[in-house]
Amino acid sequence: MKIQSFEDLFQDMLQDIYYVEKKLVKTLPGMAKKATAPDLRTAIEDHLTETEGHVQRLEQVFELLGKTPKAKKCEALEGLIAEAEEVMSEITDKQTLDAAIIASAQAVEHYEIARYGTLCAWAEQLGQDDAADLFEKTLEEEKAADEKLTEIAEEEVNPQPA
Amino acid sequence: MKIQSFEDLFQDMLQDIYYVEKKLVKTLPGMAKKATAPDLRTAIEDHLTETEGHVQRLEQVFELLGKTPKAKKCEALEGLIAEAEEVMSEITDKQTLDAAIIASAQAVEHYEIARYGTLCAWAEQLGQDDAADLFEKTLEEEKAADEKLTEIAEEEVNPQPA
Repeated sequence: MKIQSFEDLFQDMLQDIYYVEKKLVKTLPGMAKKATAPDLRTAIEDHLTETEGHVQRLEQVFELLGKTPKAKKCEALEGLIAEAEEVMSEITDKQTLDAAIIASAQAVEHYEIARYGTLCAWAEQLGQDDAADLFEKTLEEEKAADEKLTEIAEEEVNPQPA
Repeated sequence: MKIQSFEDLFQDMLQDIYYVEKKLVKTLPGMAKKATAPDLRTAIEDHLTETEGHVQRLEQVFELLGKTPKAKKCEALEGLIAEAEEVMSEITDKQTLDAAIIASAQAVEHYEIARYGTLCAWAEQLGQDDAADLFEKTLEEEKAADEKLTEIAEEEVNPQPA
């Protein structure tokens, strides 16, 4: 689609993040399976449940806008996943693998934090306050997921300093 | 390279972010040129200068580790840039283009925030305190750049609410 207005740009990004959330619903179970630390596995599984909720919230936003939900392939997420899979496939040590899983998951979280931050601001500018509220809720969950991963890395996964 | 230890993983990510910073030195001038709002253009140009400093800091880290600087292609950044260029090429309205530039730049900033956060934590775990300090300095600059972009978006670029 040709982007001729700010509204078009907003919808383009909405379709991008819808692709991201739907793809993560498929990707997170594999990451959880590869994790060794029980808390890391649980955190990823919990975030999978949240991610399913994010997909539903985005569908609510499409509805608020009177649009049919549509996903647009996100090259950035594809790159993030390709990189994560490449690194993970090269690692044999379990603790190192957990550290890599956390780093990859946090890179994805930060992509989402950037996108939801933008979407929230744009929705407000467009007077779409209900949509902005939905983005804000998800944004807070993404930030909390990122912090939880930092906590797990510090407490359980990263080797102790020499 | 096969990742057999936590040190290997750390170096792998160091090579990834070195690629990112070097690539951004080449990419940012084009983004600045496309920007219309003077403050946005200035912010990108200022961040280009900072980015050149980030490359140098990474070279200092390689030196601290006794390694030759090496860049490893970052698929995530390639995806972010491809997506940014695609969206920007589709936009005709200048204010909408500025909004898209800000969103793209913030997605890149967040990739870097995630990576430097991880590198900083890993350097500390490896007892590489001088490297951790260098990562921390860059991390703060990336966060400040992200905040500056939010400020410009709110004050100058995004259309006023209806």
